[in-house]
Amino acid sequence: MSASRKAYVKHLDLKNGRVDMSHGSGGRAMAQIIEELFLAALDNPFLRQGNDGAVLPSEPGRLVVATDAHVVSPLFFPGGDIGCLSVHGTINDVAVMGAKPLYLAAAFVLEEGFPLADLKRIVDSMAAASREAGVPVVTGDTKVVERGKGDGVFITTTGFGWLPEGSNLGGERARPGDAVLVSGSLGDHGMAIMSRRENLAFDSPIESDTAALSGLIQEMLETGADIHCLRDPTRGGLATTLNEIAGQSSVGMMLQENAIPVKPVVEAACEFLGLDPLYVANEGKLVVVCAPEDADRLLAVMRGHPLGRDAARIGVVQEDRNGFVQMETRLGGRRIVDWLSGEQLPRIC
Amino acid sequence: MSASRKAYVKHLDLKNGRVDMSHGSGGRAMAQIIEELFLAALDNPFLRQGNDGAVLPSEPGRLVVATDAHVVSPLFFPGGDIGCLSVHGTINDVAVMGAKPLYLAAAFVLEEGFPLADLKRIVDSMAAASREAGVPVVTGDTKVVERGKGDGVFITTTGFGWLPEGSNLGGERARPGDAVLVSGSLGDHGMAIMSRRENLAFDSPIESDTAALSGLIQEMLETGADIHCLRDPTRGGLATTLNEIAGQSSVGMMLQENAIPVKPVVEAACEFLGLDPLYVANEGKLVVVCAPEDADRLLAVMRGHPLGRDAARIGVVQEDRNGFVQMETRLGGRRIVDWLSGEQLPRIC
Repeated sequence: MSASRKAYVKHLDLKNGRVDMSHGSGGRAMAQIIEELFLAALDNPFLRQGNDGAVLPSEPGRLVVATDAHVVSPLFFPGGDIGCLSVHGTINDVAVMGAKPLYLAAAFVLEEGFPLADLKRIVDSMAAASREAGVPVVTGDTKVVERGKGDGVFITTTGFGWLPEGSNLGGERARPGDAVLVSGSLGDHGMAIMSRRENLAFDSPIESDTAALSGLIQEMLETGADIHCLRDPTRGGLATTLNEIAGQSSVGMMLQENAIPVKPVVEAACEFLGLDPLYVANEGKLVVVCAPEDADRLLAVMRGHPLGRDAARIGVVQEDRNGFVQMETRLGGRRIVDWLSGEQLPRIC
Repeated sequence: MSASRKAYVKHLDLKNGRVDMSHGSGGRAMAQIIEELFLAALDNPFLRQGNDGAVLPSEPGRLVVATDAHVVSPLFFPGGDIGCLSVHGTINDVAVMGAKPLYLAAAFVLEEGFPLADLKRIVDSMAAASREAGVPVVTGDTKVVERGKGDGVFITTTGFGWLPEGSNLGGERARPGDAVLVSGSLGDHGMAIMSRRENLAFDSPIESDTAALSGLIQEMLETGADIHCLRDPTRGGLATTLNEIAGQSSVGMMLQENAIPVKPVVEAACEFLGLDPLYVANEGKLVVVCAPEDADRLLAVMRGHPLGRDAARIGVVQEDRNGFVQMETRLGGRRIVDWLSGEQLPRIC
């Protein structure tokens, strides 16, 4: 993002103005929206460099990079919006690799006619999330598509951080006997989106759990516990995440249904809509696979953090050359928790 | 991008199939499209890691990061498509900073109903461009939006590389007396897009110049010439790029119109459509600001490279506290080459 240093004759109308095609054409109007809307909110010395990219201090060793396109609909939902979500989602992808997220890049695809006031609200929300997590947006890009060729705003963020020496997390490291933990209740984000889409009303509204997990993860890593894998169970929910890990590690898992935390209101909404909370997306939850002897120690640390208060041990890794994730149900039966096979919840993140 | 290691009952129908919402939902269908379409084309050990991000060997010093959303319309155009364009564009943004581009991340927003055959053609084109430039796609993401909420395919790429010690390029480094060079003819990419959109037919069709400039730039840097700034004049064209540099460096420029290379067919198309080639996007051209005594040496190196055959010295940096870019016209007059003020060519990249 580079911007002219000139003063503009007229400021952007951030109250009643709308995105128009000129905001993406590389000329003066684009420089103005970058300066008065994006830079104004996200300002930091890297973004201010104003060249075609950012120059960042680098470390030797191993760089972690994660990228995510965000197309959530609606753009604003109980507990968050596409702005903070696009910051949290990518920070989490870097953090679960074991790295401390340090920088973000952000690329926007805006639809012609989108209200500048809504765009400002979204960018302000990104800025707040970025500040809170201590991860600045260091470079960016803005494109505009014609009305009807997009859907308000899409935001792709890319995050970076460096892996500490000796760090070695990965989906292929789950071993029979390992404990499986989650950091809190499942399905909150997906059901917050769905309840807004379906206009469901509950006594206590369902709020998205969107949050940056990097602080919690940092505390967990500092314990020195033998953590084998961390994942944030987003699209496809817990079930999909555990099937991915089981597949990568060629192991099975046995879960205890009555140990899996799900809020009553989320459970009720799922039942109403015919959804299974195990397949519903989370945006501020963590799945942990660790050595069994370290599970209690990790749970204690997690429960001491605001984002891990409801952490629970939900199952165990076991030998299984079929790679099945199974669950002992509340009624004492067993069932296979398979991959999500079709579409469950589109545009959830 | 993580994918299941399982065999699928039925392979994707890459001939007649279409993108559907399930390809973005995080379940089995998404794992399958990643495995059979994206990984099949872009395969490399980093992408195969299958975690939430990629782990890359890092270097101490300075990391360069650039990100670009690509929304070009039409997706296929003479001389290229959105696939190779999204690779070239971001490689160029990293290269003009003075770094050797090493890795790319790619995030796709697909529209429901988009033909898988077209998607495969695009991803194959990305893969070919990535291989040719020696810059692998190391991590990625795929989202799907409903029909009518996108426009086929949008691709955001983010590129990385490390700056060599002592390297110091930037838009703020232009000094009065510096020479201004371009690597070849202007306006080819923009007019290739426009001629396709407007169904213009010429005896010799206009082809996009989309190309990775990293090889050319590497050769130029190796000369040790005193280069102050490199830029690829994309959206907004040469005029906008020079105005940005003039603004960042608080200098003016004087161009010679008759020294600026424009192909006759591009000039004719511009005239027909009422466009000025100085404002039309390029995707494989380089603007160079350098010490005047090194200009001839650089021009010789550029002309020896396939992407710089028509390189030319087109102007000089001069003192000007107003930061005006001016041009001596073919007729001997002078005019100000101002910022592009409105929309000229939407969705050109």
